[in-house]
Amino acid sequence: MAHLPTRSFQAYQVFAANTNVGKTILSTGLVRAAAALSVGAEKQKQRAAAAAASGVTKAHVKTYAPLVKTSRLYAYPDPVSPHIATTNPPPDSEVLQATINAIRTFKQSLVHGDKGWALLETAGGVNSPIMSGELQSKFYRPLRLPTVLVGDSHLGGISTTLTSYESLHQYGYDIPALLLFHNKSKNHEFLERYLAKAENRPLIHVLPSPPEKLADPKADAEQLHEYYNKTESYFRDVVQELEKVHQQRLDRLEQLGDKARTSIWWPFTQHQTVKEVTVIDSAYGDIMTTYVAPPTSVATTSSEQSEQKKEWRWREMFDGCASWWTQGLGHGSPALTQSAAYASGRYGHVMFPECAHEPAVKLTETLLETVGDGWASRVFFSDNGSTAIEVALKMALKASQDRYINLGEATGRVEVLGVDGGYHGDTIGAMNACSPNVYNAQVTWYKSHGHWFSPPTVVYKDSQFKITIPTEMTATKEPVQVTIDNLTSVFSEPSAKDPRLEIYRNHIRSTLVRLTRDEKRSFGALLMEPVLMGAGGMVWVDPVFQKCLVEEVRAFKGFGTEVSPVKNAHVPANNNWKGLPVVFDEVFSGCWRLGRKSAADMLQVNPDIAAYAKLLTGGLITLATTLTSDSIFNNFLSETKTDALLHGHSYTAHPIGCAVANTSLQTYREMESHGDADKARQDWGAISHTDSNSGLGVWSLWDQKVVEQISRMDIVEGIVPLGSVLAIQMKEANGPSGYASLMSQKVQQKMREKQSEEEDAEVAIFGRPLGNVVYMIASQVSTREQLAKVERILLRTLEGPL
Amino acid sequence: MAHLPTRSFQAYQVFAANTNVGKTILSTGLVRAAAALSVGAEKQKQRAAAAAASGVTKAHVKTYAPLVKTSRLYAYPDPVSPHIATTNPPPDSEVLQATINAIRTFKQSLVHGDKGWALLETAGGVNSPIMSGELQSKFYRPLRLPTVLVGDSHLGGISTTLTSYESLHQYGYDIPALLLFHNKSKNHEFLERYLAKAENRPLIHVLPSPPEKLADPKADAEQLHEYYNKTESYFRDVVQELEKVHQQRLDRLEQLGDKARTSIWWPFTQHQTVKEVTVIDSAYGDIMTTYVAPPTSVATTSSEQSEQKKEWRWREMFDGCASWWTQGLGHGSPALTQSAAYASGRYGHVMFPECAHEPAVKLTETLLETVGDGWASRVFFSDNGSTAIEVALKMALKASQDRYINLGEATGRVEVLGVDGGYHGDTIGAMNACSPNVYNAQVTWYKSHGHWFSPPTVVYKDSQFKITIPTEMTATKEPVQVTIDNLTSVFSEPSAKDPRLEIYRNHIRSTLVRLTRDEKRSFGALLMEPVLMGAGGMVWVDPVFQKCLVEEVRAFKGFGTEVSPVKNAHVPANNNWKGLPVVFDEVFSGCWRLGRKSAADMLQVNPDIAAYAKLLTGGLITLATTLTSDSIFNNFLSETKTDALLHGHSYTAHPIGCAVANTSLQTYREMESHGDADKARQDWGAISHTDSNSGLGVWSLWDQKVVEQISRMDIVEGIVPLGSVLAIQMKEANGPSGYASLMSQKVQQKMREKQSEEEDAEVAIFGRPLGNVVYMIASQVSTREQLAKVERILLRTLEGPL
Repeated sequence: MAHLPTRSFQAYQVFAANTNVGKTILSTGLVRAAAALSVGAEKQKQRAAAAAASGVTKAHVKTYAPLVKTSRLYAYPDPVSPHIATTNPPPDSEVLQATINAIRTFKQSLVHGDKGWALLETAGGVNSPIMSGELQSKFYRPLRLPTVLVGDSHLGGISTTLTSYESLHQYGYDIPALLLFHNKSKNHEFLERYLAKAENRPLIHVLPSPPEKLADPKADAEQLHEYYNKTESYFRDVVQELEKVHQQRLDRLEQLGDKARTSIWWPFTQHQTVKEVTVIDSAYGDIMTTYVAPPTSVATTSSEQSEQKKEWRWREMFDGCASWWTQGLGHGSPALTQSAAYASGRYGHVMFPECAHEPAVKLTETLLETVGDGWASRVFFSDNGSTAIEVALKMALKASQDRYINLGEATGRVEVLGVDGGYHGDTIGAMNACSPNVYNAQVTWYKSHGHWFSPPTVVYKDSQFKITIPTEMTATKEPVQVTIDNLTSVFSEPSAKDPRLEIYRNHIRSTLVRLTRDEKRSFGALLMEPVLMGAGGMVWVDPVFQKCLVEEVRAFKGFGTEVSPVKNAHVPANNNWKGLPVVFDEVFSGCWRLGRKSAADMLQVNPDIAAYAKLLTGGLITLATTLTSDSIFNNFLSETKTDALLHGHSYTAHPIGCAVANTSLQTYREMESHGDADKARQDWGAISHTDSNSGLGVWSLWDQKVVEQISRMDIVEGIVPLGSVLAIQMKEANGPSGYASLMSQKVQQKMREKQSEEEDAEVAIFGRPLGNVVYMIASQVSTREQLAKVERILLRTLEGPL
Repeated sequence: MAHLPTRSFQAYQVFAANTNVGKTILSTGLVRAAAALSVGAEKQKQRAAAAAASGVTKAHVKTYAPLVKTSRLYAYPDPVSPHIATTNPPPDSEVLQATINAIRTFKQSLVHGDKGWALLETAGGVNSPIMSGELQSKFYRPLRLPTVLVGDSHLGGISTTLTSYESLHQYGYDIPALLLFHNKSKNHEFLERYLAKAENRPLIHVLPSPPEKLADPKADAEQLHEYYNKTESYFRDVVQELEKVHQQRLDRLEQLGDKARTSIWWPFTQHQTVKEVTVIDSAYGDIMTTYVAPPTSVATTSSEQSEQKKEWRWREMFDGCASWWTQGLGHGSPALTQSAAYASGRYGHVMFPECAHEPAVKLTETLLETVGDGWASRVFFSDNGSTAIEVALKMALKASQDRYINLGEATGRVEVLGVDGGYHGDTIGAMNACSPNVYNAQVTWYKSHGHWFSPPTVVYKDSQFKITIPTEMTATKEPVQVTIDNLTSVFSEPSAKDPRLEIYRNHIRSTLVRLTRDEKRSFGALLMEPVLMGAGGMVWVDPVFQKCLVEEVRAFKGFGTEVSPVKNAHVPANNNWKGLPVVFDEVFSGCWRLGRKSAADMLQVNPDIAAYAKLLTGGLITLATTLTSDSIFNNFLSETKTDALLHGHSYTAHPIGCAVANTSLQTYREMESHGDADKARQDWGAISHTDSNSGLGVWSLWDQKVVEQISRMDIVEGIVPLGSVLAIQMKEANGPSGYASLMSQKVQQKMREKQSEEEDAEVAIFGRPLGNVVYMIASQVSTREQLAKVERILLRTLEGPL
C-alpha cells in the first residue's frame, strides 16, 4: 500500500472525459505547480512526480516542468488505442504492479518530512481499454487514487464530462477535482450549477485555454512556456485546494474508528473488549483496503523511526471471513454494480404482492431451474436468512397442522425436529427452532421448541476423513469411528460392511417412537442445515446421517392422525410431502458455497422447503428466498384472505436485490459450465483428469497439499475443506472450549500480524473468531494466486508458536 | 401512455455518445428503412415518423427520406447547447407533453392494422442539458422508450460510447441497439467483444461511414443520396432486428403476470382470490408504468373495436400505497441510484462488527442529529422493521431483567405493555409483542406476550377533529367525546376543562396496579407506534393518551424490586431510563412520513429505544436501524462475549443501504429547511402566513379543502390526514368489519377504473385494500399537480355510487 496517500504524500490519478481535451497540459500544469510549492530546485525535484500510462506526456512534462521526476510506464508505436497498439500485451497484474512500483519508488525517494506529490496520467478517456482490453476505469480500482477528472470543454462536452463522471462514480472513485478550460461553450458554468447538488461533489476549476498549436515548433514551445508561466497561480490554487481536501479526507478517516466505537452498536460484539476498529476505506475483489492507527505505545529507538511509527498507515486485508459469509463475486464487482444501477434507475423499489416485475420473475425462474430443480415450484421472497427461516417455519407448521388432527394439544405446542448445534438466525422464531446455545442463552423470549439429534460428524485429519458417531447412538455405547479416503466418497452410499446405516436408522426410529408415543410430543417440521452447520462452529454433519434422518422422518407414521379428507387432496400424491415437511436451511450452504449449487444436491435429497440468502446476491445486498412445492403452498389456498401466509416485508423482492441475484446466479452457473474449478476438482479427486463431466464430485477451493499438511499438525483436531470453506478445529489444551474458546481469536490475531513476507509487506488476513475454529472463506472468484498467499500465511502461523 | 410501443407500433429514442458522431445520418437511415418496409408510398407515409428534439434533423430527413412524417419540437437559433440557446425555457412538463403528443398524434393517424414506426431524436449527447438545464437522460425517463445508442466511431470513442452506455443503463433505459460507423479505429470490434458479457446487451450494428462533406451543396446532396441508397440493406437489417427484439419484449411482458402467478408466492396474498396481476415495466416518481392484459370477455360491438380491445395496453398508475409505504423520493430517483452505485463500486458489502466505513458512520451521525436528537447515542443496524423491533425487544427486555430482581418468575414470562391494534412486523418475536389479530391468528408459534391498552382515537369528521375515548376508561362507562378545531392543537397540551388528562392518568395507573400487584405479571418494555398505527388500520391514537402512557409508566414504581447496586450505575441518573424502557416503533411513522422528522417529535416525548426503516432509504432498498441511549447499551457491557447483544444479520449496515439513507435523510432535511411544504402547512394552520419558522405545527400534504369535503360525506366515518398519509375510514353498513371488510377493496377497484377524464385517459390509481380503510400515501416529493389529479379521482369515486 506504499503507493497510497499519506499526510505528507499526495497521489492523484488523472482521467479525461475524452481524448484531446487537454489532459497533458492540465497534468503538466498540476505537477509543475506542485513542485513549485517547495523552495529551491533540490526540494522541488524531490517534491513532484508524474507517471503516465502512455508515452506522450513524459516529453511534454520534461520540457515544461523540468524539475519534475517523470516515468513512462508503457509506450506504443502508433497513436491508436493501447489494445490495438499492443499485439502481445503484458498481464494486467504486471501492469498494475509496475504502476504501483513507479509511485512507490518515488515515495520512497522522499526525504522524511518532505512533502511529495505524484500524478498518474491515464490514456484516452475514462472507459478506454488498456493493453489487455480491460477498461482502465475498472483496471485502476485497486489503486483507489483520488481522481482529477479533466472535463471536455468543447461543444457537447457537458455530456461527455458527466457520463465520465457517472462512470467513475459508479466504480467507486472519489473525484475531488474537475478541471475545465474556459471557452465559449461555457460548459464549466453549467457543470458548476449541476454538480453543486452532487454527493461528494468535486471542486470545479476553470483554467485559461491553452494557445492554438503553431506550425513552427519553436514558436509553439515559446507560447506554451508563456502559457504555463501565466497560469501558474491557477494551477497553484488547484494544488492547494486538493491538499485541503486531502487532509480533510485523512482527518475523517482517522476519526472514523472512534466515531464508530462511540456511536454504533455493532452486531455480535462485546464492545467492552474491542481492541482495534478496522477502518475500511474501500474494497475490491477479496481485498479490503483499511487505514490503520499507529500503535498507542511505541518503544522509542531513534526519534525519526518513532516519528514514522506514529503515522497512520494503509493495510490491504484479505477478506478471510468473506464479510460474514456473504462474498460470492468479490467486493465492488462492476457487473453487480451495473445490475444494481439499472434496477435502481428503472424501478427503484416497486410493489410486490399481486405484481410482477422482470427481475423478480427472472430470479424465480432461475432459482427453480437451479437449486429448486426437481422439487420446488414456488418462491417466497424476504430480507435475510433469519426471515427466510421464519417463513419456512410458518409454511411447514401450518401444513402439518392442516394434515394432523389436534397437533400439539397434548403438550400445548408444536415443535420441530432438528440437529443439535444448528443455527438458523437471530429473530425469535428462528432462535426457538434451535437447541439452547450461547447465542440464545441471554435472550429473554427464547424458548427451545424442538428435539435435537446429536449429529455424527466428519473431519479431515491425518489425510483421512474421519466420521465420529455419538456414543448415545450405538448399542454398546462405545465410540464407533469410520474412516474414508476420498472427499467425494464421504457423500456416497456406504458399503455393505459400513455399520452406519444400521446404527443411524435404529437410533432415529427409536427416538421418533419415544418422542411421539412415550412423550406425546407433536412435531411440525424437520429443520436442518444440510452438510455444514455454520454458526454452530463449522460442524460437518455426516451426510449419510442426514439422508437417513430425512428418509426415516418421511417414512414414520406416528406424527399424528391424518385429517380426512386431506385439505390439499388435489395435489398429486407423488408430489406430496410425507411424515413432516423437510426444511433445509441453505442460507450458508446454498448457491455454490460448498462447490455445488446446493448442499441438498450433495446429499442427493430434495427438501420440501428450503431457504437461500447470503451468496444469492453475490455479496452485495441483502435478499432471501424460501422455496417450496405446491404441496405446501396449496395449504394456504382458500376463499379467505386470513388463510393466506400473512407475512411480508416492505421491500419484498426489491428489484436491486433480484437483479443482482440474477447476475450472481448466472455467473456461478457459467463458472460451473466453463470448468473454472476443474483443476481444484481434479486435485481433490472429484473428477479424474480425463473425465470432466462428472457433476457429482465434491471438492475444495483450497490447495489439497496445504490442507493435507495442516491435517497432520498436532495442534489441529480436524479440518473441514468444502468448496470455498476451510475450517480448522484447533485443539484446546486448556481454557474454555467451543464458542467461548479463545483459540481461533489467538490464531486470527497471529495471522493478522504474520504478513506474507515475500509479498507486499502490507497484506494481512481479516478473520473472525469462532470459538476454537479458525476458518477462511474465499469468494467464488478468488484466484489461486490470491489463495496461495493466504495459505502461506496460514501455514506459517500454524507452524509457529501460538 | 399512447406514446408507448404496441404490437403494431414501434417507437425508439435515439441518444448519441457525443455530438458530431452521425446521429442525424443514422436516424435518417433508420426511418427511411422503416418506411421502406411497407409497399407503396401511401403506406410508407403512414408507417414511419421521426420527431426530433432539435431543429437540425427535420430538414435532413425531409430531403433524404421524403415519405417520412417529421416534426420538429423545438428549434434554437444558434448551434449551442439548448440551455444556452433558450433564454426563457418552457417548463419541463410542457416539453414532455409536447413530445408525447407528437408521438401520439402520429400513432393515432395510423390506419388500424398498419404498422407504425417512430423515432425520437435527442439533441447532443446522452447527458446534454435540455432547455431548462435538466439532463436529457433524466428528462426522458417517463417515456421509457427503447433506446438506439449512436456510438462514437472516432479515436477515443470507445470510452465515450461506454460511459454513455453506462449512464443510460443506470437511468434504467433498455438499449436494444448500438450503431457505429465502420472506421479505422475499429471501435465496433472492441465494443462487440466487450458488451458480449453485458446484461441485456445491445445488438451492435456497424454501418458504412458516410462520405466526407463536400463544399458544393449540390454535390454533397448527391453523394448523400447515393450513400442512403447504397446502405439501405444495412439499415433494413437494423430495423428488422429491432422489430424482433421488440416483439420478444412484448412476448415476455405478456407472460410475466402468468409466470408470477404460477411460480411466485406473494406476501400477504390469498392466491386463490387474485384477479389481476399488475405487470410493472418501469417506474418513475410516483408513477408505475404497467402493462395490462385485455379483459377476458369483450362484448362485441364492431369487429374492429373488439379487435382493439383484445390488445394489451399500457397504463400509468399513481403509486397510491407508496409501494407498501416505502416511497420517500419516488421511483428510480437518479440521486439515489448514484449513491447506490458509488457505494456498490467502492465497497460492495463489507464486514461490519468492529469495523467502520464512511456510509455507516455518516448515517449514524445523521440519525443521532435528527430523529435521535436529544436522547439517542447508539445506532444498531438491521434489515427491516420487523428485525429492528426484535432488536429493540432484546435490548429492552434485558435492560429490565438486569434492573428488576426475578423479573418474570411468578408467571414464567416477561411481557410488554402495548396498545391494542398495534403491529410491529411479521417475525415471531415482533408478532408476540402484539395483541391477537388477523395477522397472527393462524401462526402456529404466535403467543401474545403482553397487556394491550385500548386506545382513544382521533379522526377528522365534518371539519372537526373528534377524539373518542373507550368506555372502559371512564368512570361512568359513558362515551366521552372531545372535539378540536385545528390539526396542530390535537397535539397540544389539553386545556384545563378538557377531561382527558384525568381520565387517562387514572385509567393507566389503576391498570398498572392491577396487572403487577393483583395479577403478578412482569413487564419489560412499553412498546408502541407513536401517533399512527399503520397496519392495524391507520388508527390515529390520541397523542395526549400516548404522552400520558409514557409518563405514567416512567413514574410507576411497581414493576419490580430493583437490583442493588444497579448494573449500569455509571450512567448519569438523568440519562437513565425509568419504569420500563419506552420503545417507539417508528418504522411507519418515522423519517418525515407524518410531516415531521419523527412521531416522537410530534408527541414531544423521547423514547429510550426506537426503530426506523421504510422511508429511511427513500424507498429504494431495505435497511433498518434501532436507536437507543447508553443507558440501555451499557447493560450489555462486560468482559464476557456472551453478555453482548448477540444479534446481527450478514449484510448488517450494507454500504448501499447506508449511502442511500444518507442521501434520503439529507434530502428530507433540506426540504424542511427550504420550506417545500410551507404552502401545505399554511393551509392546515400549522404555521401562519407570516411566521414560517414554527417547527411545531402539524400538517397534511393533501389538500385541506378536498379533505374537508370528504370529511362531510355520509359514507365516511372519519379521516386521518397526517403528512403524506391520507386514510379514510369508510362506514361499513353491512358485511364484515375491520380487516375482513371489503369496503376499501371496493373503493380501490372503483378508483382503478375511474380514470381522471380531463387528464391522460390512461392514468389510474394503484391502492391496496386495508379492511374498511381507503388510504393514499404520497411520497415526500409528490407534486401538488400530481396529487390534485389523485384527489379529483378520489372525490369522484366517493361521490359516485359504490
